[in-house]
Order: sequence, then C-alpha cells, then structure tokens
Amino acid sequence: MNAYAALLAFQRQTTALAQVSGLLGWDQETMMPKGAAMQRGEWMAAMSTSIHQRQSDPRIGDWLAALEGADLGQVERANLRHIRRDYHRASRVPADLAAEIARTTSLAQGIWAEARANDDFAAFAPTLEKVLQLRRDEAAALAPGEDAYDALLQDYEPGMSGAELSGLLGELRPGLVELRDRIRGAGRAVPRLDHRFDDKAQMALADELAGVFGYDWSRGRLDKAVHPFSSGSGNDTRITTRVDALDPFNCIYSTIHETGHATYEQAINPDYLLTPLGQGVSMGVHESQSRIYENQLGRSAGFCRFLYGRMRDRFGDFGIGDADTFYALVNRVGQGFIRTESDEVQYNLHILMRFDLERALIAGDLGIGDLEAAWNDRFLADFGVRIDRPSNGVLQDVHWSVGLFGYFPTYTLGNIYAGCLYRAMTAALPGLAADLERGDTRAATGWLKQQVQQHGGLYEARELIERASGDKVSAKPLLEYLTGKFRAIYRL
Amino acid sequence: MNAYAALLAFQRQTTALAQVSGLLGWDQETMMPKGAAMQRGEWMAAMSTSIHQRQSDPRIGDWLAALEGADLGQVERANLRHIRRDYHRASRVPADLAAEIARTTSLAQGIWAEARANDDFAAFAPTLEKVLQLRRDEAAALAPGEDAYDALLQDYEPGMSGAELSGLLGELRPGLVELRDRIRGAGRAVPRLDHRFDDKAQMALADELAGVFGYDWSRGRLDKAVHPFSSGSGNDTRITTRVDALDPFNCIYSTIHETGHATYEQAINPDYLLTPLGQGVSMGVHESQSRIYENQLGRSAGFCRFLYGRMRDRFGDFGIGDADTFYALVNRVGQGFIRTESDEVQYNLHILMRFDLERALIAGDLGIGDLEAAWNDRFLADFGVRIDRPSNGVLQDVHWSVGLFGYFPTYTLGNIYAGCLYRAMTAALPGLAADLERGDTRAATGWLKQQVQQHGGLYEARELIERASGDKVSAKPLLEYLTGKFRAIYRL
Repeated sequence: MNAYAALLAFQRQTTALAQVSGLLGWDQETMMPKGAAMQRGEWMAAMSTSIHQRQSDPRIGDWLAALEGADLGQVERANLRHIRRDYHRASRVPADLAAEIARTTSLAQGIWAEARANDDFAAFAPTLEKVLQLRRDEAAALAPGEDAYDALLQDYEPGMSGAELSGLLGELRPGLVELRDRIRGAGRAVPRLDHRFDDKAQMALADELAGVFGYDWSRGRLDKAVHPFSSGSGNDTRITTRVDALDPFNCIYSTIHETGHATYEQAINPDYLLTPLGQGVSMGVHESQSRIYENQLGRSAGFCRFLYGRMRDRFGDFGIGDADTFYALVNRVGQGFIRTESDEVQYNLHILMRFDLERALIAGDLGIGDLEAAWNDRFLADFGVRIDRPSNGVLQDVHWSVGLFGYFPTYTLGNIYAGCLYRAMTAALPGLAADLERGDTRAATGWLKQQVQQHGGLYEARELIERASGDKVSAKPLLEYLTGKFRAIYRL
Repeated sequence: MNAYAALLAFQRQTTALAQVSGLLGWDQETMMPKGAAMQRGEWMAAMSTSIHQRQSDPRIGDWLAALEGADLGQVERANLRHIRRDYHRASRVPADLAAEIARTTSLAQGIWAEARANDDFAAFAPTLEKVLQLRRDEAAALAPGEDAYDALLQDYEPGMSGAELSGLLGELRPGLVELRDRIRGAGRAVPRLDHRFDDKAQMALADELAGVFGYDWSRGRLDKAVHPFSSGSGNDTRITTRVDALDPFNCIYSTIHETGHATYEQAINPDYLLTPLGQGVSMGVHESQSRIYENQLGRSAGFCRFLYGRMRDRFGDFGIGDADTFYALVNRVGQGFIRTESDEVQYNLHILMRFDLERALIAGDLGIGDLEAAWNDRFLADFGVRIDRPSNGVLQDVHWSVGLFGYFPTYTLGNIYAGCLYRAMTAALPGLAADLERGDTRAATGWLKQQVQQHGGLYEARELIERASGDKVSAKPLLEYLTGKFRAIYRL
C-alpha cells in the first residue's frame, strides 16, 4: 500500500495543477483584460509543461508496476484505472507538442472571438489550420497507425469509438428527421416574443434558477461569458451565462444547463476530492446531467408553468397570455442558425453535422480552405436554410479554436444518456410533474445525485448509465421522449 | 551564449508559473467562493512545489557556472544577478517547507478575515503562531546562524538590512513627532465629511482616476477587495479598491495608490516580459511609485482642486464649500486607528511600530500571546489613543497572516524614496502644479516612467533611486516636503 499512497499523493498535486489551469481558462473567458492574451498563452504553456511532466513522470510507471496484482478495494482499483490510462496517454505525447498545443489554443481562442465579431472566417483560418495540425500530430503520437479521431475521442469519452458513435447517432437520425418534417408539415404557428427583457432582471432570475436546481453558492459563482460554460470541480465550481435582451431563454437555459454540469461536480463524494475519481467521468455523462436539467426537467410542461409565473413576477406582462402558450414557445421548433439556441428536436442534427465535418478534417478528407463552404452546403441540405454570415455558421462555436476535436458528439451522446436516465427517473418518481410545477427539483436532482453524480469516476461511463437506468444504452428512450413530447405540443 | 539562452528559456516558464500563482492570489481576494478555501490551499501548495522545484533545479547552477566570466551586456548581467540570488535562496529552502508555507498562508488569510470580522484575535492567534514559526524556520534555512529578520527582508528589499532600515527610519522619527505635536498644538479645526457617497458613483470615479493616472485598461481591471492591492505584471496588471459610503477618500486614494503600483508594472520595457527584469525591482521602489502617485501628486493642492471639481460633478454638494477647505480635509491630520487611512504625517509612525513589533516576533523577543497587548500599549504610547477593538488594532492588516514579515518597513522606505524622487521631479518640471490643477498627470507620470519605471529590475533599488534623484538616499527630502506642506496647511 506504500506505493499506492505515494502514487495518490503525487496524483493529488497533478490534479491541483490541472484545476489551476481550469481556473485560468475561466478567468480568460470572464475576467482577463484583452491585452493579456499573449502573456496568458505563455502561462497556459508553462502550466501544460508542468502538468505534462508530472503526468508522464516515470515514477508513475514504477508505482503502477509495484501495484500490479495487489489486492485492492473498488475505489483504489478505479483510481488506478484512471491513472494508468492517463499515464499511457501522457507518456506518448512529447512535452514540446503538449506545450505548443496549450500555447496555440490559448491564443487561438482570442483570434476566433475577434474573427467571429468581424464575421471574417479568413482571419481565423490559418490559426485553425495550425490547431488542427497540432491535434493530428497529437493523435499520431497517441495511437500511431490507428484511427486519429478515435485517439482524440478518448480525451472526452474514454472507451468510445467513432464507429460506435456513428451507430448510436445513426439510430437517432431517421426518427428525428421524420419528427421534424411532421412538425414543419403541420404548419402550426407558435408565437414569438416581442419584448425587451432587462439585463439585471435576467441575471437575478438566473441566480434564482441556479438555486432552484440545487447549485451550492458557497462553492461557486455565476458570471457572464460569450459562450457559456461551467468550470472547476469540488468546492470551486463556477458557471457562466449570457444575456440577450430580446431572448431571455438564452440566459435561462444556459444557466440551467451549466447548473447541471456544476452540480454534478459539486455532488461528487467529497472523499474523492483531488483524486482521479473526483470529477465527472466523461463528457457524455456530464452532458447527460446538463441536458436533463435543461430539457427533460427545465423544458417540461410542469416546470414551464412555474417559470412562466416567475417571469411574470420579474418582467411583468411580456406578451404571452397563458402557461400553455409559454410552454409551446419554450419548445418552439424553429429555423435558427445557432446550435446552442436550437430546440430539442433539431439540436442533434447540428451535432451530427459537426461530427461528420470534424471527422473529415481529422482524417484529412476535408481541408480548412473548404470548411466554410462545406459547412454552408451541409447546413442548407440539413436545415433548408442558407447561412447568412460566418458568425451564424462555421464561426459560431468556440470548440475547434481550442482544439476540441472529438468533443461535439459527446453532446448528443449526453442527450442519449439523458434519455435513458429520464425513463428510469420517471418510473421511480411518480410525483415528478407535480414537483416541477411547484419549482421543486429536489426529488429529481436528488435521484440523479444518488444514481449518477455522487460516484464521480468510480464506474466507467456506459456502466454508470446502465446501472442507473437499468438497461442497455440506446437512442430509443430519447427518441420516444422527444416524439411523445413534440407530438403533444404540435398536436400531430 | 547557449547556456544563457537555455537559462532564460527555463526562467521564463518559472516566471510564468509565479505569475499564475499571483493570479490565484488575486482570484482568492476578489472572486473565489468562500467554500473553496481548503481546495485553494492545495492549489497554492502544488504551485509552490512546482515553482520551488524549478527555482532550485540544479541545472540553474550548471548554467550559472558555465556563464562565470562570460562577456555579457548590461541586461544579461542584470538578469544573471537576479537569477543567481533567487537560485541561492530557493536551493536553501526545503521543498516541503515551501509547500507548507504556501498551504498554511493560503488558509491563514481566510482565518484572519473571519477573526477580523468577528473582532476575535484569539481565533487567529494559533494560526499566526504557525505562520510565524514557518517563516522563522525559513529564515534559519536561508541564512543559518545569521539575523533572521535580515534574511526575510531580502524577499522584499534585496540588499537592505534591518540595521540600515533602523537608521533611515530613525532619521525620520524626531522630525515627524515634532511636526505632529505642532499640528496638534495648533488646535486648528478641519471640517469632517457628513454625507453619504453612492457606491456606484465612487466606483465610477475610481475608474476615472485610474485613467487620469495613466492606467492602461486594455491590460488591467479594477475590482473590490477587503484590503486593496495590485497584482500581476506586464500585460495583466490588476488593481482593487474598497468603498466606504461615509469616506470616499478610502476608495479614491486606494485606487490612486494601486494605480501607482500597476502603472509601474505596465511601464516596464516590454522586452523584459517574463524575464527577471520584467517586474518592479523591490517593494520599496514599488511603494515609492504608489506613494508619489497617492500623496505628492494625488494629495497636492493642485490635484485636490481638480478632484474637488470632479467630486462636485459626481456627488453634488457634499458639504465642503471650497477647494481650500477640501485640500485641508484631504490632508487632515487626525486620530485614527487604521494605517491605510492615516495621513502622511502619522503614516510612518504606524510603520515604525509594526517594524519594531515584527522584528521582536521574529527574534523571539515577543510571543504571539503577548502581541495584542504589545500592539495596544505601543499604540497608546505613540498615538495617544486606546485601541477599542482588534479590527482597529492588531487584526487590521492582512500582511502577517500571509507570512509577510519584513514587508512593512518597505512602506516607509517607499515614502523615503518618493521624497527623493519628488524633489528631483519638481526641479525638472516647473509646470507641475499647474498640470495637476487641470488633472493632467502626464508630465509627472512620464518623468517617473522615464526615470524609474521602464527599467524594471535593470538596476538595484538604491542605485535606481540615486540615478533618478541625482543624490544619495536619505529621509531628509521627505521630511522637508512634509514639513513644508503641513506647515502651510496648518499655518504653523
């Protein structure tokens, strides 16, 4: 057990440094002065070098070898599983490459933000080219001769492959397309908002809603960011949102979504703090929590009734006459450009498109020079709408600028996991709808905490979802939930 | 030159990590959720371990040895002087002790803040005891068998000794006591403020004043903190202030003071970024900049005339009828408990007291158990007033909680340096008073930038001040400035 204790103590400091890097990322998006971008790149690179040095420290190999065949408990075995995987990955990536990726992506984010503000993809393209090449180099180092996309995927969804994802996502596609076509065919008009919503009142409502979904304010905070995100873990878990005067749902559902991520981190067994088990087990599982908070709970008929009342209290009459109309409005299937503002039905079509494009980029089948056109063509084909400007198209998401190739499909995987969990949750909680109508999420979030969140990295992602839902992972429950919900709303 | 390039590249990453630690400190005081304190302690300790490992890396010794006797330019020689000094210090402090100091002081700060809020010194005493012991251990490791206080002083004012400081500070004392006695004896009444100053209007004025003193907003930001400070260097240099509804001068002069620190960092030759020359050369010189901004410029008759107009614009009639009365009010010599709110005459008496108490603590001549009583006795003797509660006494400053023994005297040293610089500045800028009356600080801050700030760590502290002022460092110019100014205000 001496080797185990030494290994965990070593690991603890590495985790602490990784969490510091996370805070730097948060600061960069919320607080950092603009002129600090270059210097911040140096900071990120220095952190990355230090972390990478520790992650690939040969002593980890020695400790792991000494523990081979040792008689260990469940928690210890799970810790070793994570450490072994991380060590094998880290020791394959050269330190220089890791530092270069950190430095480049830190700068690329600012360049992306400016290109997006100026609607100028060409200004971003050379940077994106460089980021893409660095990640391809990384994939080649991680798994020489193997599928590069699969190699990158392991950073976000360990154990998952591009082929498996294709299968799960493919399972979803026909049903979604059919449902959307029927909704469009029905031609049922849903009202739009035509009101200005005060900035401060929106942020006050965001504060309230984070609390309604169980956010622990003593261990977090809420700020604004261009692209909302949650950050941190354990006792320092921060969320961000954005405010659009004409669309309060942007702020509201970003907040609920990020609260789902953050409460997951806050709910993890405190004994796991700063160990490999002390964080969400995969991006897919993380997204299952944010999505179930946002959609299955937050966009339910019951919760919309509660939210309608709270909005009337805070904003007065905003032109929507009753809770049923409000519910239809919240779940309106429209024709927008922006993934993060999309409805539950079309959201996954956004993801399928990015998944295909980024697999082609990584495989070398699509060049950056052709990316904007490929995006616009595919969007026209899938959504029937022509992209009007890059900020509504290829420049809308931050992900690729920071090198997150392989990340997008975990969003839909999260929706699929959320579908599985929600079926089990409704069976376990017959009073759920009535609770939500009162704005009481305690039974639902308590169930998720018990079944999923507290475990952190104890189980593998798929195992965790299957234990919680009592069934194999499949896209079916999600599709059934969506079909049932939107047939009712659109009276199909 | 290969060894030099390798050494500087290595040093660059160490500096980046140190700057990350600085940002963690800023975040802790401004943004961090309260519940994150323990976890933050782990982060600080992990950063400290990584930094300390690099600072004491034996390769530094090899590079330095390889460069012995090399033919180098001025900048290179100055860089090596800093690196050599830091290396010798770092390699003497055991890594465990460095990490323990980082962890303990990170937590101690929160405990101090709570004790201060509750006016409960006993709740803080055991923590302070631990911090003191750790710093004494560090001093013993740094300079075995030598004066412990001198060893600690090197972190803040390299090359200075406790004995030298005693001399300079002693030079000041009789004149200050005499001046204060004459002011008190004159019995001239200065009006007090009796008005509530809006929080937001104070912060807006703070924004304006930082700009008036040349703060570059593209490379910084302003937030609130319990104890105002500035943080960072180069292109990420942040300032903080506090707001008291009844005393706007708290916010105003904290802001100007921290702007002095921050613009020093911002003005350093950008070629020095992330090298040992890329930061203020000592705490004394740093304080000379913040003090000359705050006092010699910010509390001058000319600038007070400008400020009076701006305050009338922002707050309306606040009960002070003319600019002369306002000037006397700003420079009122009163009977307060708080160092940071003290006037220019008595401020240094606050410091002399802390200097003597902390030297006694480090020497072991005074125990923590007797500190509160010693503070209160000394305050009564020096200021003629009985301390009413610990937050007005021994708990008022953050410094000792974070282990800053040896830091306090650099405040008065900074005042002494500022006195030297101001004498040279007024000789060089005959239009200064007229400029300040228009709120135009460009000539004054430009002179400081040219003479002092741009050089960063190129010269040693004392050499820098003597080059800029054209004379030996002495307390005389400060004393003459204070005597002249306050004799006029109090018509002595």
